Amino acid sequence: MIQKIIIEDRRFPLGAGAGSDAIHRDPVYSYAVCKLVDDSGLVGTGFAFTLGEGNDLVCKAAAFYADTLKGKDIEELMANFGTHLHALSNEQQFRWLGPHKGVVHLGLAAVTNACYDLWAKKRGVPLWKLLISLSPEQIVNTLDLSYLEDELTHNQAIDLIKEQEPTSKERNSILTKGYPGYDTSIGWFNYSDEKVRENCKKAVAEGFTAMKLKVGSKEFERDIRRAHIVRDVAGDEAKIMLDANQQWTLPQAKIICKQLQSMNPYWIEEPTHPDDVMAHKVLADAIAPTKIALGEHVPNRILFKNFLQTKSVGFVQVDAVRVAGVSEFIAVSLLSKKFGIPVVPHVGDMGQLHQHLVLFNHIKLGHEALFLEHIPHLQKHFINPVKIENGVYITPEVPGSSCDLKETN
Amino acid sequence: MIQKIIIEDRRFPLGAGAGSDAIHRDPVYSYAVCKLVDDSGLVGTGFAFTLGEGNDLVCKAAAFYADTLKGKDIEELMANFGTHLHALSNEQQFRWLGPHKGVVHLGLAAVTNACYDLWAKKRGVPLWKLLISLSPEQIVNTLDLSYLEDELTHNQAIDLIKEQEPTSKERNSILTKGYPGYDTSIGWFNYSDEKVRENCKKAVAEGFTAMKLKVGSKEFERDIRRAHIVRDVAGDEAKIMLDANQQWTLPQAKIICKQLQSMNPYWIEEPTHPDDVMAHKVLADAIAPTKIALGEHVPNRILFKNFLQTKSVGFVQVDAVRVAGVSEFIAVSLLSKKFGIPVVPHVGDMGQLHQHLVLFNHIKLGHEALFLEHIPHLQKHFINPVKIENGVYITPEVPGSSCDLKETN
Repeated sequence: MIQKIIIEDRRFPLGAGAGSDAIHRDPVYSYAVCKLVDDSGLVGTGFAFTLGEGNDLVCKAAAFYADTLKGKDIEELMANFGTHLHALSNEQQFRWLGPHKGVVHLGLAAVTNACYDLWAKKRGVPLWKLLISLSPEQIVNTLDLSYLEDELTHNQAIDLIKEQEPTSKERNSILTKGYPGYDTSIGWFNYSDEKVRENCKKAVAEGFTAMKLKVGSKEFERDIRRAHIVRDVAGDEAKIMLDANQQWTLPQAKIICKQLQSMNPYWIEEPTHPDDVMAHKVLADAIAPTKIALGEHVPNRILFKNFLQTKSVGFVQVDAVRVAGVSEFIAVSLLSKKFGIPVVPHVGDMGQLHQHLVLFNHIKLGHEALFLEHIPHLQKHFINPVKIENGVYITPEVPGSSCDLKETN
Repeated sequence: MIQKIIIEDRRFPLGAGAGSDAIHRDPVYSYAVCKLVDDSGLVGTGFAFTLGEGNDLVCKAAAFYADTLKGKDIEELMANFGTHLHALSNEQQFRWLGPHKGVVHLGLAAVTNACYDLWAKKRGVPLWKLLISLSPEQIVNTLDLSYLEDELTHNQAIDLIKEQEPTSKERNSILTKGYPGYDTSIGWFNYSDEKVRENCKKAVAEGFTAMKLKVGSKEFERDIRRAHIVRDVAGDEAKIMLDANQQWTLPQAKIICKQLQSMNPYWIEEPTHPDDVMAHKVLADAIAPTKIALGEHVPNRILFKNFLQTKSVGFVQVDAVRVAGVSEFIAVSLLSKKFGIPVVPHVGDMGQLHQHLVLFNHIKLGHEALFLEHIPHLQKHFINPVKIENGVYITPEVPGSSCDLKETN
């Protein structure tokens, strides 16, 4: 039984230039942390990610939702978590502050993730193992599929998972093989050309075959020059992603994306405002076959549905510490599966939680684990940091979702 | 010069059943209030609207933004307010919590509205009079049109206003004639059929020729029965709006909206989730010529742009206490004008602020003042409450934006 709720506002200043992009000058990677203390002594930990300022607001929202869980048994809760999540996210006064977006939805992410962590710890298994042990019906009972009825009903969701069952055993091999990480820390926006080149060489030496550069400069020329530096160092085979962090208007994006095609980007990420489904559609058509990736600022399954329906997203970067936690992450993954679009999560959690979800998506939903973003900056703060060897993610074996933070910064 | 900032969390419990709809059982109408105290002794008051829970979070967000205004001269600030608003709404850490939506954007609404109120008070005129005195260039300088470049550039916005100048004098007659209010309090969701019938008779007797009923019941039959009650009492000529407050899935909406067409609704409001542009498009096509109204939960100009581009909205109900205040309200009004879609604001402000904006839209932008929602519940808390006579809004003459609240509830 959940006896006590602890909410923590944790902030981690980064080194100079780290985390910088076209919009964010000096982010302070921060977590609004929710801990659910069970009477068995177990503590379920979940969090939402922010860039510092306002992390306290998310903590307050998390506290509001978490209070409703006191006295609940985690197994009973998770048996029909979708119903609970639906009720929480539609709390009749709080809902006005969203709905299903912004501060309140981030708060809900922290609480949801704490539930999944506690659930896995209670069963004594890593989260990925718990999730793949569930039946299709049990999985879908943890989801809130409301407002998806035109594309994904409860029964359609069950069928989607069932279709993957005959081949899921083969896909278990990923647990020993692992899957590639990609390095986002080579090319932060404020890094000099020289530092980008050096980082790039280091990443190649460490075994990374995929990496990401921040673009979105006021001068297109800088973006193009730096993109070619990365291509030159990493070679023709490397997957190189370009991330504009919403800096372009649609007319600008149409011009620069065409020019950037000269270095053959694997995707172009967040070209413009994350709410602008129609702009992404126009751009996707204009730059095909180059694909658009987006999702770190997309707050919920409904907007993802619109991006998928309009074929304006080529890689879904849903983030379980932005949407309403693991549950909505899975709902969006199912939707993406229906539309045949790959899921490559954004990792506000530094990959801690998503390493479990990528394994689940790969084995259970047949979403090939292409790779997963790797951002090393907060590793020392986690009790069980992700392990990457030769550029490959190693399967976590500790019970839970790997989200426990050390007590002090 | 702005010397001091005061933030107030004001909450006003309503009478039994008032304010109820298909989602909201017992809202507590609340304002996150921002007051800018000028060294001349004037106080600019602005607010955002919430339903109670979490109003404190919006207050905190408002405080964050308002702090940056200390020491600023209001005339200098408003001369290029669009630039300031752009910078505030993209503050590099806080932005993550939106962007441009939810708690942070509501906080920004409060601050923006306080700026406009102070500006009008400084000039000693009601806000509508100040706004119509501005040149097209001056108006557009108060706007942040970023991410609208594909539909509405700075120069196109100026041209749109200029086109209306030759005919604007004629439209001044609205200042003496007034324009109709419509009564939203006849048909709250929890009211009995009998109460709806009585309220309806009372509204007709008071001169209202337009009124709104809350629908979105679990049983379609209840909605249809009540809609016909209103039509029977109000007569064939009355404009009757039906408001579902997002309660339907798209498949449900397609069925019930067809059935509701039997009582000839003037519009159907918020049929489904406010983020679901594509669902609204499908529904709009399916139920044409019946029009969809929406906007009270649409957080910013970018989503409004998508609704307009897809022709899925027939009446734009942008609310200046939901989007980033008067400034973004005007940006959305201009966009709507470009697409030829009328603006009929939702009134989280109970019409206090919007009575000014409807006059501005009518005279300066050529947006015919069809009517404006009227919700009487908070009248006693305002120092200068809206005046409606024979169902018609009377032009406010007190300097400012009519948003000052009495000190105690």
